[in-house]
Amino acid sequence: MTENEILIVGLGLIGGSYAEALTNAGFRVGAIDRDMEAVRYALDRGIIAEGTDTVEKEFVSRYRLIVFCLYPNTFVEWIKDWQDFIAPGTLITDVSGVKVPVVYKVQSMLRPDLEFIGAHPMAGRERSGVANSDCSVFKGANYLVTPTAANTPEAIEKCKELGRVMGFGKISELSPEEHDEMIGFLSQLTHCVAVSLMTCRETSEMARYSGDSFRDLTRIAAINETMWSELFLLNRDVLIRQIDMFTGSMEALKKAIADGDTETLKALMRESSRKRKLFEKK
Amino acid sequence: MTENEILIVGLGLIGGSYAEALTNAGFRVGAIDRDMEAVRYALDRGIIAEGTDTVEKEFVSRYRLIVFCLYPNTFVEWIKDWQDFIAPGTLITDVSGVKVPVVYKVQSMLRPDLEFIGAHPMAGRERSGVANSDCSVFKGANYLVTPTAANTPEAIEKCKELGRVMGFGKISELSPEEHDEMIGFLSQLTHCVAVSLMTCRETSEMARYSGDSFRDLTRIAAINETMWSELFLLNRDVLIRQIDMFTGSMEALKKAIADGDTETLKALMRESSRKRKLFEKK
Repeated sequence: MTENEILIVGLGLIGGSYAEALTNAGFRVGAIDRDMEAVRYALDRGIIAEGTDTVEKEFVSRYRLIVFCLYPNTFVEWIKDWQDFIAPGTLITDVSGVKVPVVYKVQSMLRPDLEFIGAHPMAGRERSGVANSDCSVFKGANYLVTPTAANTPEAIEKCKELGRVMGFGKISELSPEEHDEMIGFLSQLTHCVAVSLMTCRETSEMARYSGDSFRDLTRIAAINETMWSELFLLNRDVLIRQIDMFTGSMEALKKAIADGDTETLKALMRESSRKRKLFEKK
Repeated sequence: MTENEILIVGLGLIGGSYAEALTNAGFRVGAIDRDMEAVRYALDRGIIAEGTDTVEKEFVSRYRLIVFCLYPNTFVEWIKDWQDFIAPGTLITDVSGVKVPVVYKVQSMLRPDLEFIGAHPMAGRERSGVANSDCSVFKGANYLVTPTAANTPEAIEKCKELGRVMGFGKISELSPEEHDEMIGFLSQLTHCVAVSLMTCRETSEMARYSGDSFRDLTRIAAINETMWSELFLLNRDVLIRQIDMFTGSMEALKKAIADGDTETLKALMRESSRKRKLFEKK
């Protein structure tokens, strides 16, 4: 990479982890967060070189590479409000968990002398905030780049390189549409399932008998409601389609149980076991 | 415990793990399995002292404590076919994952000079067979005893003691009805959910992007179809009730998403996070 200075906007769990990974990789990292305590925490830990809680042109315009680690809607608002502060020729990327409603909107409103390329680091924790940040969660994780026709080969390569230097295990390229379909199933539907399992009945009496199965299926039921409700609504149509497919499968399984149809039950379980093999960790 | 000889019928994953745990605890363990290879494997590993692949009175009648580690229906059939071989005064227990249809049936058909008390070791693996047995899975796990009015205090205590000597972390007493309700939710519903997640759509393209969420939710989707279809059907009414509660919750979540109802979404997520806390490992 040619730029050795990177600006991170938003010092939450992911922004803080990016700052740590990039500082470790030898970059000089600056940060903006509206919470001065988050900025001070990052300065004290040495994971950023400079930081501020106010958006100022003099600060923003010094950088030629900016990573937005904000919730999707906040990111879009930021661009609307402050893109005039960004220096011409700057490359912008992000970490949003949904792509179609973010990428096309930002690309269509962006100044022609700037370029935005979407990315999604598939890593996280059940906690939030810079104090919980830890770039070791990137190790072996997926880093997805979601270019469109508006992107240059140079920007795509630079964005992938960013994932590589932070230590991600796999760097992949997907269209925003493919991304949202995949994430709607693998991530959003699973969070819907975990929340529904956890809320569908009184469970306090059962906690002491719980084995690993229920624990594993509800680990992600402890959920950041602000972020996930935003992500669900931004990917509404895709997610509803995943929910319908899933509940259709549950209904088929239930019918086999109600009918005492052992053969169908076994066939579903065989299909399940066979398909699960592909998801075993290498 | 007064008996220091225990007969295990069925040397699968759980039977083998029982044999190992009880031999380690100083018991002399005998075993019956229709597969002579399983018997030989257990003899070679030293986890049983004697074993046979045929049911003979001379062998069976030597024991005063018998643990049936068979699938539920096979266990009931065994009692029907061979209970005449059991010595008077013998205590019988089991490991079945459903209790109402097993416990009352066995207790009602059993000779009056024998006693059966149900138990359920809540431990297992995604593999089967004696070659995968490993009594370390009992460490910290739940051991449930499900007495009825037909049981004596002595039998209940002896059964609990069995769980203790094998190293289970928590020994609890539940009615067969409470057991099946709890297991229908915590274990059977979760397996239905995992199978439905795994079978609801084409997933081969997605495997390489999977993070831990999807992996955790589908770990149990690799499932022993013979055992689980039997368990599901034996607990049919309870399980269907759990499925209905769960899909009702999914529908409520889906409606909130479709309506763009952020407040309801957040409220469900807050409830989910709060209830999940009770299930954190101590």
